[in-house]
Amino acid sequence: MNKPAFFDVYRAEIDTALSRFLDQTSTSDARLTNAMRYSLLLGGKRIRPMLCLATAKALGTDSNKALHAACSLEFIHAYSLVHDDLPAMDDDALRRGQATCHIAFDEATAILTGDALQTSAFHLLTLDDFQQSDSVKLALVAELAQASGGRGMVLGQAIDLSAVGNLLSLEDLEHMHQHKTGKLIESAVVMGALCGSANTTSVDALKKYAKALGLAFQVQDDILDVTGDTQTIGKSAGADKALNKPTYVSLLGLGGAQDKLASLYETCLSCLEDLTDSDTSELKAIAQYVIEREH
Amino acid sequence: MNKPAFFDVYRAEIDTALSRFLDQTSTSDARLTNAMRYSLLLGGKRIRPMLCLATAKALGTDSNKALHAACSLEFIHAYSLVHDDLPAMDDDALRRGQATCHIAFDEATAILTGDALQTSAFHLLTLDDFQQSDSVKLALVAELAQASGGRGMVLGQAIDLSAVGNLLSLEDLEHMHQHKTGKLIESAVVMGALCGSANTTSVDALKKYAKALGLAFQVQDDILDVTGDTQTIGKSAGADKALNKPTYVSLLGLGGAQDKLASLYETCLSCLEDLTDSDTSELKAIAQYVIEREH
Repeated sequence: MNKPAFFDVYRAEIDTALSRFLDQTSTSDARLTNAMRYSLLLGGKRIRPMLCLATAKALGTDSNKALHAACSLEFIHAYSLVHDDLPAMDDDALRRGQATCHIAFDEATAILTGDALQTSAFHLLTLDDFQQSDSVKLALVAELAQASGGRGMVLGQAIDLSAVGNLLSLEDLEHMHQHKTGKLIESAVVMGALCGSANTTSVDALKKYAKALGLAFQVQDDILDVTGDTQTIGKSAGADKALNKPTYVSLLGLGGAQDKLASLYETCLSCLEDLTDSDTSELKAIAQYVIEREH
Repeated sequence: MNKPAFFDVYRAEIDTALSRFLDQTSTSDARLTNAMRYSLLLGGKRIRPMLCLATAKALGTDSNKALHAACSLEFIHAYSLVHDDLPAMDDDALRRGQATCHIAFDEATAILTGDALQTSAFHLLTLDDFQQSDSVKLALVAELAQASGGRGMVLGQAIDLSAVGNLLSLEDLEHMHQHKTGKLIESAVVMGALCGSANTTSVDALKKYAKALGLAFQVQDDILDVTGDTQTIGKSAGADKALNKPTYVSLLGLGGAQDKLASLYETCLSCLEDLTDSDTSELKAIAQYVIEREH
């Protein structure tokens, strides 16, 4: 599919803000700064910050009041990619069509780059130019930490590591993805909802939408790993198979994975119907993009 | 010197709290949990959390109201050690008399362990059982992030990396240490002061004390690297020299480094004299311990 026009508007707004927040939270060391900038700003779909802004907007809140939250998610995502690509982890040389951080710089710099990007994610939520109350900012810190640490994303990565070469049930695979990528995608809407002062009913519906969306994202990733080519998807095609990693395609077959993707999309749309007072058109378009994207 | 008796009291309190906060912020993966526990709880002097508690106490605040802040510093310190010891960084096999995390577990687990310990540091500052206002908690998050990220500790590590094998002036060496270890030690008293609602004058005096203390700590580390033996100091003696790292001893000679240490100790004591309304006996004892310690 073609990207909807609002994607480019958000993307420009997000990229400008990412660059500004990097300046506001880091560093005078040229090599480290360059590596952080390289890892944060070159490429990437910006799905998480976009989801956060679209959620805030659906609740009637200006994106200026959610930009810090949106970008903190991208800082965490970028750090996780830098560390995930390291030789001791997935040992990947290509990401977003570019050399990975430890290839473009060196391994020690890549470790520190990931570390500093994580710290900046929390730092930027505390900045004075973020126009939210201290209580909302603190709730955002708590949400981001829960989603990204040893109970969230990092737990998913640990499960992923121990799963390489093992037979995994569909349930185990889902549990892994719900943590490794799902928690942060859920957080994107929860943090958007916090910035937009959503009521509990709306947050529940948004969380269900995001949970289905996060899994859909992963199913499509697995499908692209077998149907895509390296140039289009921007990372090494067939990498999962080469590592003998369990995927939705290896467990369900290509047709089964495609059916699963369609069903998750339906779940996304039905959850959004519960948000009767909100304009959810952007959230719908993001779901459609996630399942139809080619990279 | 013998440790003052209050060290053991604080230590027991800190270790119990570290274990509790680990349970409250992490994880259901046994291997990751074990590696986090191993890295956080085996050994370590607990200088940073102790400084934070002693500062709060000097300002008349019960340690219960500063324990989360104190322990968040130790989580950050522990994560930095795990990553610093990695093969691509200092490649050290021994820490606190134990195998380093990547030796006891594996490199991928050590990367994730450091990542999750950092996240937990910020997470635990947001916990409901931390009896401080949202504004104080947020200020603590901001202080910890500034001290530990690309403007603080990680910047120091990046400077350290690029300094290996280079001639460094005393000024450059000091700049490196002020970031690599100094910022977090300064933060220990700033965070203690935030928990104890200190006034600006007190915070300024405490910061000067901590700045001198942080440098003293490093000077003594450099002295121990040449005068200590591996068994007593709990890490590989002569490691700095083997890596051709610039140190206070290599730049000033052993006698010069010892003079510098004595002068920094005097600075610590004179800063504390400015805190006329506070009982600074514990802060004095910590300074004395830092310059006289043998490991």
